[in-house]
Amino acid sequence: MNKYKVALIGCGTVGGGVARLLTRDADILRERSGVDLELAYVADKNLEHARSLGLDERLFTDDYTVALSDPNVGLVIELVGGTTIAKKIIEDALRAGKHVVTANKALLAHHGRELLSLARKNGVSIAFEASCGGGIPIIRAIYDGLIANRIDAIYGIVNGTCNYILTKMIKEGTSYKDALAEAQQKGYAEADPFLDVSGTDSAHKLAIMTSMAFGVSVDFDSIPVKGIDELELLDVKYGEELGYVIKLLAVTHRQDNGLCMRVRPAFISVEHPLAWVSDSFNAVSVYGHSTGHTMYYGRGAGDMPTASAVVADIIAIANNTYPVLFNTLPLWQDKTQKATMVPLRENSARYYLRIMVEDRPGVMAKITSILGEHNISISSVLQKEVPEGSKTNHVPIIITTHTVKESDIEDSVKRMEGLDFVSGRPVWISIVDEYPENL
Amino acid sequence: MNKYKVALIGCGTVGGGVARLLTRDADILRERSGVDLELAYVADKNLEHARSLGLDERLFTDDYTVALSDPNVGLVIELVGGTTIAKKIIEDALRAGKHVVTANKALLAHHGRELLSLARKNGVSIAFEASCGGGIPIIRAIYDGLIANRIDAIYGIVNGTCNYILTKMIKEGTSYKDALAEAQQKGYAEADPFLDVSGTDSAHKLAIMTSMAFGVSVDFDSIPVKGIDELELLDVKYGEELGYVIKLLAVTHRQDNGLCMRVRPAFISVEHPLAWVSDSFNAVSVYGHSTGHTMYYGRGAGDMPTASAVVADIIAIANNTYPVLFNTLPLWQDKTQKATMVPLRENSARYYLRIMVEDRPGVMAKITSILGEHNISISSVLQKEVPEGSKTNHVPIIITTHTVKESDIEDSVKRMEGLDFVSGRPVWISIVDEYPENL
Repeated sequence: MNKYKVALIGCGTVGGGVARLLTRDADILRERSGVDLELAYVADKNLEHARSLGLDERLFTDDYTVALSDPNVGLVIELVGGTTIAKKIIEDALRAGKHVVTANKALLAHHGRELLSLARKNGVSIAFEASCGGGIPIIRAIYDGLIANRIDAIYGIVNGTCNYILTKMIKEGTSYKDALAEAQQKGYAEADPFLDVSGTDSAHKLAIMTSMAFGVSVDFDSIPVKGIDELELLDVKYGEELGYVIKLLAVTHRQDNGLCMRVRPAFISVEHPLAWVSDSFNAVSVYGHSTGHTMYYGRGAGDMPTASAVVADIIAIANNTYPVLFNTLPLWQDKTQKATMVPLRENSARYYLRIMVEDRPGVMAKITSILGEHNISISSVLQKEVPEGSKTNHVPIIITTHTVKESDIEDSVKRMEGLDFVSGRPVWISIVDEYPENL
Repeated sequence: MNKYKVALIGCGTVGGGVARLLTRDADILRERSGVDLELAYVADKNLEHARSLGLDERLFTDDYTVALSDPNVGLVIELVGGTTIAKKIIEDALRAGKHVVTANKALLAHHGRELLSLARKNGVSIAFEASCGGGIPIIRAIYDGLIANRIDAIYGIVNGTCNYILTKMIKEGTSYKDALAEAQQKGYAEADPFLDVSGTDSAHKLAIMTSMAFGVSVDFDSIPVKGIDELELLDVKYGEELGYVIKLLAVTHRQDNGLCMRVRPAFISVEHPLAWVSDSFNAVSVYGHSTGHTMYYGRGAGDMPTASAVVADIIAIANNTYPVLFNTLPLWQDKTQKATMVPLRENSARYYLRIMVEDRPGVMAKITSILGEHNISISSVLQKEVPEGSKTNHVPIIITTHTVKESDIEDSVKRMEGLDFVSGRPVWISIVDEYPENL
C-alpha cells in the first residue's frame, strides 16, 4: 500500500478536524482509499488546540520549515488562513517541492493565479476543494463531474453564517440584528462577522468557482458585492407573500459579451431547490449546457465537513490523480485569460421594489409613471397598510417588474428618492429566475 | 494535446447524445478537458437514429467487432442496454483490451462483479457514472469527493418516471393511473413502464451506489423492492396533511450488524431537501461520518444529461485518472466481500398506517389494543370522515407510530386484516427520518 507523509500547518478548528481524520480514522481512510496517509508534522505557533485533541506531541513543532525540509513529506496542508503568513507558507512549501492542500478562499481569490503558477514552476500542485462549500465536493464537480459541459451559470449559497441568519429571519421573523447575535452565540458567526455578512467570503468562493467553471481568471475587486447587513425583515416578509425566499446568492452567468457576476441578497422562487437550503447549509446550482441544472448541497463549514474535503484532496494527490488534472486541464487560473465582465447595470432581470410613500391620492400614478419613463414594465403592484409599529403614515408600495435593465431600476429609484411623498430610500432587490436549460 | 479514439456501440437516445457531444461540441470538450477525443466508430444494428442526427456516415458500422479490432481505439462506449447482447459486447471489448464506459445499470447490478473482475484481468477499466442519476456526478462523489468518509446512509430518488408521476399525484391530485398515462404521453415513461414503476430500476441504481459507498458486493435479489403502482392518492394526501411528502426512496443504511436496503414508496418530512425534488429530477442524499449530509441533484435521465456523465468518464479514462482509481481504490465490487444484509423486518422506523374501519363504537379501542399488544407506540391518531365518493360507511383511521420494529407493524396489520369491521387491507408506509449526523 502506498505510504504517504503529510505535514499539517495550522491546527485550529479545521486543522484539528484534519488531524482527527488522519489519526483517529486512519483505518477508514485506508479501507476506502487504498492509501496509507501518515501525519508527520503538526505545526502551529500555538499548539494548545492540537494538545487538547490528544494528538501525538512528538509531531508538534512551532517551526513549519522543519516539515518543509523533510524529504519524505510529499504534501503540506495549509490551514492557517488569512492572506499574509499563509501566503508565505504556501510559497515556501511549493518552492520546497511539496504539493499544497488548502481551504484558504481569501488567498486563492486574491492570489490564486500567481500561486498556481508557482506550483507549476516547481512541478507540484495546489488543491483547494475545501475552499468552497466545506464538505460539498463542488470544485470536483466543476473540474471532473461536469467536465463535458460548457458551464453557463452558477448560483451559490456559500456562506453558512448568512444562510443561518436569513433562515432565522424567514422562519422565525427574527430581526437581522437579533439573528446575528444568535449566530454569534452559537459559534456560527465570528466576533467580527464582517467577512461573512458583507458578502466578501461568498465573493471569494464565487471567484474561485467561476475561474474554473468558466475557464477564466477573475479580478476579485471587479465583483459587485452587497451583504445582508442592511436587509429589512419587512422585505423578507413581503417577498415571501409573493412566493420568493431571500438568499445571499453568489451568481455568475454567461452572456454573449462576457460574464456577469455578483454577490447580494436576492429573491428566488420557492420552486427553486436553493430556496429550501436552510440554516447553516450551503448549496451550489451549476447549469451545464449538456447536463442542465445540477445542485450540490451540504455543510459549508465546520471542522469535520471541511476536513472531509481537505483529506479528499490529500488522497487525490497521494494517488497522483489530482496532479495529472492539475497538469492537463486547461481551466486553471494561471492558464486562462482574464474574464470579460459585463457590468451589473447592463444586466436584465426581474426586480422587487419597495417604496414607502405618503398615503394620499396621486402617489401611485407618479410612481408608476416614473417607472414607465424608464421602460420598466410592471408585473404586480401591492399597496400595503401602514406597517405595525410605524410612527409615520407612510405605506409601502411593493412592485415587481418584468425583465428590465438594472440601470433602469437604479435610475428610476434615484429619481424617486427626491420626491416629497417618498420616505427614505426605496428598496430594490433582484429576483433570480431559474436559469433556462437548453438541452 | 492527447488524442484519444473512442467507439460508440448503441446509438439510441443516450448514444445519440454522446455522439453529438463528441462531434458538435468537440471544441467545448477540448477547451475544458485538454483531451482531444475522436469518435471513430458508431456501431448499431439499426443506424437510423444515427443518420437522423447527421453524423458522419463513414463512422457507421453494424458490426461492433470492427471497432474492437482497431488498435487505435482505446475505449468502447456501450449504450445498447439490457443484460444479454450488452454483456457480450462489454466482455468482448474488455478481452480486446479496451476500456469500457457504460450507462447500463441493470447489467452492473446483476453482473458488475464479474465484469469488473474481467476488466482487471485484461488491464483495463469499466466506468459507469451514467448508470446512476443521469447527469448527476453521484458515482464520483462516492469514490472521490467523499472518499474521506465512512458512508453511513444513502437516500436516493433515482427514477425520474416515478418522481414525475408522484409529483403529479402530490401537486395536482392526479390518480396514479392518469399520471402514468401522462408520463407515457410525454415520453418520460416507456410503453412498458414495469422496470420504472416496480422500483426495479431504482434498485439497480441502489445496488451500484451501495456497493461502492459501503465497499461491499450486493446480491441484487436480496434487496426488498416495492413500486409505486399500488399507491393510493388518499394516502398521498393524508401524509401531506401530516407534513410528509411521498417519494419512491432507494435507501441503504448501515447498522451494527450489516446493511439495511430497500426501495419503496416512503414518507419523508417536508423539512428534508429530498422532499422538494420534483418532476423528473433525481437526487441522492449521502451521509458521511465526517461530512454529514450532502445531496446531489439533477436530471436523472435524458440524452444530453446522461451523455454528460458518459463523456466525463471518457475524459477520465483518456487522461488516465480513472484507471488509476480503478486499480488502487479498494471499493470496487470485485475486490469486496458480500454485504451482510439486515432483513427489513428487523429494521426500526416510524410508520404511517391507514385502516378503513366501520364507523361504530369500540373500533378504535380494538385497533389501538392490537397495536399495543405488538409493542407499537402511537404518535398520532386521526379519524377522518367517509372519503368523497366512497360507497361504504367505512372511515379511514390514520395512525403514525413512534419508532417501532417493522415486523411488529407487519404482524399487527396482518391481524387487523382478519377483523370483521376492517375493510380491505390496511395500508402502511414507512416514514424516513433525517439520518442523524454525528460529526
